[in-house]
Amino acid sequence: MPQLGLLHWRAWTVLLGQLRRPPGAVCIRAVRSHSQVAEALFTSQLKPHQEKSNFIIKTPKGTRDLSPQQMVVREKILDVVVSCFKRHGAKGLDTPAFELKEMLTEKYGEDSGLIYDLQDQGGELLSLRYDLTVPFARYLAMNKVKKMKRYHVGKVWRRESPTIVQGRYREFYQCDFDIAGQFDPMIPDAECLKIMCEILSGLQLGDFLIKINDRRILDGIFAVCGVPESKFHAICSSVDKLDKMSWKDVRHEMVVKKGLAPEVADRIGNYVQCHGGISLVEQMFQDPRLSQNKQALEGLGDLKLLFEYLTLFGVAEKVSFDLSLARGLDYYTGVIYEAVLLQTPVHAEEEPLNVGSVAAGGRYDGLVGMFDPKGHRVPCVGLSIGVERIFSIVEQRMKIFGEKIRTTETQVFVATPQKNFLQERLKLIAELWDAGIKAELMYKNNPKLLPQLHYCENMGIPLVVIIGEQELKEGIIKLRSVASREEVAIKRENLVAEIQKRLSES
Amino acid sequence: MPQLGLLHWRAWTVLLGQLRRPPGAVCIRAVRSHSQVAEALFTSQLKPHQEKSNFIIKTPKGTRDLSPQQMVVREKILDVVVSCFKRHGAKGLDTPAFELKEMLTEKYGEDSGLIYDLQDQGGELLSLRYDLTVPFARYLAMNKVKKMKRYHVGKVWRRESPTIVQGRYREFYQCDFDIAGQFDPMIPDAECLKIMCEILSGLQLGDFLIKINDRRILDGIFAVCGVPESKFHAICSSVDKLDKMSWKDVRHEMVVKKGLAPEVADRIGNYVQCHGGISLVEQMFQDPRLSQNKQALEGLGDLKLLFEYLTLFGVAEKVSFDLSLARGLDYYTGVIYEAVLLQTPVHAEEEPLNVGSVAAGGRYDGLVGMFDPKGHRVPCVGLSIGVERIFSIVEQRMKIFGEKIRTTETQVFVATPQKNFLQERLKLIAELWDAGIKAELMYKNNPKLLPQLHYCENMGIPLVVIIGEQELKEGIIKLRSVASREEVAIKRENLVAEIQKRLSES
Repeated sequence: MPQLGLLHWRAWTVLLGQLRRPPGAVCIRAVRSHSQVAEALFTSQLKPHQEKSNFIIKTPKGTRDLSPQQMVVREKILDVVVSCFKRHGAKGLDTPAFELKEMLTEKYGEDSGLIYDLQDQGGELLSLRYDLTVPFARYLAMNKVKKMKRYHVGKVWRRESPTIVQGRYREFYQCDFDIAGQFDPMIPDAECLKIMCEILSGLQLGDFLIKINDRRILDGIFAVCGVPESKFHAICSSVDKLDKMSWKDVRHEMVVKKGLAPEVADRIGNYVQCHGGISLVEQMFQDPRLSQNKQALEGLGDLKLLFEYLTLFGVAEKVSFDLSLARGLDYYTGVIYEAVLLQTPVHAEEEPLNVGSVAAGGRYDGLVGMFDPKGHRVPCVGLSIGVERIFSIVEQRMKIFGEKIRTTETQVFVATPQKNFLQERLKLIAELWDAGIKAELMYKNNPKLLPQLHYCENMGIPLVVIIGEQELKEGIIKLRSVASREEVAIKRENLVAEIQKRLSES
Repeated sequence: MPQLGLLHWRAWTVLLGQLRRPPGAVCIRAVRSHSQVAEALFTSQLKPHQEKSNFIIKTPKGTRDLSPQQMVVREKILDVVVSCFKRHGAKGLDTPAFELKEMLTEKYGEDSGLIYDLQDQGGELLSLRYDLTVPFARYLAMNKVKKMKRYHVGKVWRRESPTIVQGRYREFYQCDFDIAGQFDPMIPDAECLKIMCEILSGLQLGDFLIKINDRRILDGIFAVCGVPESKFHAICSSVDKLDKMSWKDVRHEMVVKKGLAPEVADRIGNYVQCHGGISLVEQMFQDPRLSQNKQALEGLGDLKLLFEYLTLFGVAEKVSFDLSLARGLDYYTGVIYEAVLLQTPVHAEEEPLNVGSVAAGGRYDGLVGMFDPKGHRVPCVGLSIGVERIFSIVEQRMKIFGEKIRTTETQVFVATPQKNFLQERLKLIAELWDAGIKAELMYKNNPKLLPQLHYCENMGIPLVVIIGEQELKEGIIKLRSVASREEVAIKRENLVAEIQKRLSES
């Protein structure tokens, strides 16, 4: 697979093709205190908004609008992601924004408190979905689907303290790809990692690394180090913090907060600070303690096979076996992975963005069975692309480079230099629309020519049709190229064909 | 604009191009009583789901999953809609799924009770958006945008009693196009109606009619008939029911439930039972009572201009001035419109679907000002396409015609007739993926050839690459056309180029 490094950022913007205008900073007015919001709310029944002095106009905390400029960037990113999912044979699926509350319970461990509940307005108790994985598992169980490769792009909601600067929001898009079904080991898992590599390379975000581990190896480590089984989850979530905290601090948390014996913590420390390639897998097979643990051996065996397949796919060098990788969610049962960008600033002015992981996933063989009345299992493996974080990175770079974005796709503007030509303009533009040509005009009876031409230049519209009295009499129309300012006279009846010819050439 | 009638339904399916398999009926299991749900909820903290005898697995009331087959149909419909919006120069915009509760109050009249509120979990009081219009107005006011042409495709939520058979859900997509800004009268309004015609023609749903009216004409009628101003809203919502109830029943409601004098109701009846074209506008100008009302005259003047522009756009014959059209929402201030399908069954077996309106909209000049602290107004006009209803119609037709849909886009399947060829298959498929070719393989170490070929036939995959021992030794690969069952031997190094050539030809 081609290595598309940081230097190609410019090339990516060329790929986007429509970059023209600097992204408009959406002006979000100052947020006032909750008491002011409450007061505004209280009075809203009595007065129209404009009479309320305390009226605050904003989006909910942790959410945002996407401006037209942002929408263009987002759609380009989603295009890369979804094309890759389709290249790997995935079908589309959509699920409701909310689920029965009980569908989401016992799936997210410590994070369950972040679920948005809907108000009980009579009827069912509902919650906004927290991810796309649990709804997928619910769909499989509900429809007794035993085998499926699907992708899903949709919003999810989490009541986290928003640290917006890092690209974390309470409402955000997820792009998921999952393979459900009983198959020979590690083939679908390897495909998931290949997909992550294709997408991260395709988006040209710079160099990246995918950390992998296996829940069974982690559990094996905890067992052989002497962690009581009741503390596996708590210790696992301490280990999960090693990407943000030093081992010293994590050890302190284990011993002081979670009551682990210091020597047990030290034994864990010897393992979870290791990372490497396939050779580390071999080394762990030889480990005198770990090699005695059945679960760990299963995990190591799978990872060995996985590395073999990743080598065949040409992506093994992007993947690192990292014993500190734990992943927060409860439902993982086997291999887990997380992609991080290797931060090399693209540009001297660019501040290093702490974007955390940009893609993650793993195997969850027990989740579908939780929804099935008889507990029938459907093994699953999948991945989620963190498009919001990717979006933040791309947006920041565009600001630095002063890239411009076209927010419309208009191909032709219908203009006139003369008064009383609205009727002619309307007739002509309808003809263009009916021929499938993207066209605009000014909503004015008698516009001046210069503002019409300026609008085309500002908006990046390539062609202008100009209707004038003289031309109308002679049955001709002027076609102007905005870039070259060249104008040619064309027979009225040949106009659509000529425009289509020019557009197909450009 | 071409008239694409009912007979072209088959042509539309050809246009879709990917129709192959009948849409899979999503099996929704029986819904049990609320007390059972509550019981299941109560016990969910104690036992895994599969041990709960009362566990019900379903989507929330009035919501549904979209299966891969349904997703393909939905995406084709949205493509037609969004292409049209872009053809008219619209920019994209996205807003959060929920808004501050106060943003939605006093916007929807009698329907406000249908808004979904989020549970107060500390912090702001939030509601799920009820349409895309109010968030658009909030966006304009918040960012002080005075002029914008935008489209928005997104889900909205309404706690209605779901009558799913008619294509009404509690969660559904809306596709909106709006023009904000101060312009010369009726030019943007005419474009909105032109867009509705282009989309409904483009979707080939059969013949349709757009009813138009103006809120000022309705208010004028109420005034000249002697309705007290305090009853305008109540009487307006009675008039709104004339598409579902007879005049006799609506009159009864006005007199008995809303306390209108019988002679006032009769006067209203004389007006609201009228519909026609531009000539009815002229007739109303001559009406001795209505011509005395300033508001009504303004409305009639605008409609006259609107019909003139619609004639220039070539769509006047699709539009009918209908004095009974009222539209439920509070925020409309001028012209209002609603498109209905003229029900002619496409096929003898097809039951007439009561789909109601499939598109609607109007002018709302006061809504943005409600959000602005100083009440600055931004006049707006827009439309919303009822894609869920359109989706129901298309789905029903596909069932009748037994149309088949391809749910994946896979171009090539990598197969082998022999054991121990997984490594070769993995290496080869990675090469295809890296060349941008959509490819799949079976996740099995040693699959049999026949199931691999059957899978291709079932899924509509056009090409199969077959790797065998003999061929591998000779450096060749077999390429098989699934349709013709023809196989040709190709040099291994020419495989990607040959596949790309075949795909570009097909």
